[in-house]
Amino acid sequence: MKKLDLSLYLVLDPDLCGSPDGMVRTARLAAENGATAVQLRAPHWKKKQWLETARKLKAALSPLGVPLIINDQVDVALAADADGVHVGQDDLPAADVRRLIGPDKLLGVSVSDFSELAAVPATGVDYLGVGPVFPTGTKPDAGAALGIAGLGKLAAATALPVVAIGGIRSVHCGELLAAGVRGVAVVSAICGQPDPAQASAALAVALATALKTAPAACRLNAG
Amino acid sequence: MKKLDLSLYLVLDPDLCGSPDGMVRTARLAAENGATAVQLRAPHWKKKQWLETARKLKAALSPLGVPLIINDQVDVALAADADGVHVGQDDLPAADVRRLIGPDKLLGVSVSDFSELAAVPATGVDYLGVGPVFPTGTKPDAGAALGIAGLGKLAAATALPVVAIGGIRSVHCGELLAAGVRGVAVVSAICGQPDPAQASAALAVALATALKTAPAACRLNAG
Repeated sequence: MKKLDLSLYLVLDPDLCGSPDGMVRTARLAAENGATAVQLRAPHWKKKQWLETARKLKAALSPLGVPLIINDQVDVALAADADGVHVGQDDLPAADVRRLIGPDKLLGVSVSDFSELAAVPATGVDYLGVGPVFPTGTKPDAGAALGIAGLGKLAAATALPVVAIGGIRSVHCGELLAAGVRGVAVVSAICGQPDPAQASAALAVALATALKTAPAACRLNAG
Repeated sequence: MKKLDLSLYLVLDPDLCGSPDGMVRTARLAAENGATAVQLRAPHWKKKQWLETARKLKAALSPLGVPLIINDQVDVALAADADGVHVGQDDLPAADVRRLIGPDKLLGVSVSDFSELAAVPATGVDYLGVGPVFPTGTKPDAGAALGIAGLGKLAAATALPVVAIGGIRSVHCGELLAAGVRGVAVVSAICGQPDPAQASAALAVALATALKTAPAACRLNAG
């Protein structure tokens, strides 16, 4: 069973990265500088483009031991033999996705409130993406920001690892870990930054520093 | 092995049908009145909606022995246990789709010129959708119309069954069969018509009439 390290979870954005090859470059730089998981998300792409890019990402990330997670497109994940799938509330239901991908691939589900949390299947889901914590410009259809307090209440109500998402910068890592999350997902904090390698390294350092002072229950790799 | 009858192939359009339930109603009426295959195509839907509608269509069409074919979304086809998948040139490549769906489900590929025809895998594809034969309003990104002559040249260059698509009305059935196609795919000739049942029946009658006078090589169910 692969160790699940979601501490620094990069969600790629095709606009901020400039091109499919820009996404692959950004992903490689991030993975070489502390990112522990990478998600491909490109809602407006056709699937031929999805598959080509997923295969390039997989080739770049596998040697680094960093899992590639595909947003929404389960068929692309299967065709590219990606490491996992992440689905939102309007995508295929988690139970159907688990049936399609088999027992071994990662499955994450986006949750933004208690009602959505209650609908998460009791088995077959590996982690939750919870947000938006702060207002975000990279997902126009995201709901109102939860804030740290709202995030903490949701994280306390589930036994699943929680990855926080939405407007997160390195300065937030301490309070996010203290709120009980196991990882931070970022988009614009890495994608489109002048130096994605340096931006990734700064986030990784902030997480490591926060981890040293976090209560034991909040340790990133606990459990 | 299921007999493949593509003679009257309905492609559902969510706008013309008014709603997902309108699509299911239209599909049922068409299948009860001569349609031999139904494709679900909804490029702008999220997958939760895709899956819910695919399951309703499957429940409506299976008792009538009419296959449900899913456009583009292989994961939806697998989750709904649809009868087949249809892919265009920007979708997942046919060889990848065949690997995902296994040997038994139908697989169709859209082709609009000789270059695309040459790229169709030698095995694993069950039929080709060729068009647009005439100008069409329901697929804004379709290329220039082939005309009957262009369609006939493509159909003569492949051993696969050809389903013609693009602006087809019942009046065209005779010349399409004479051009060597095995079936006609329609969208607006059924979807959004005041009486989809009557429209379907009229197309079925036109096809049957055309078949009686078509050369043996063009018989709908030959091969």
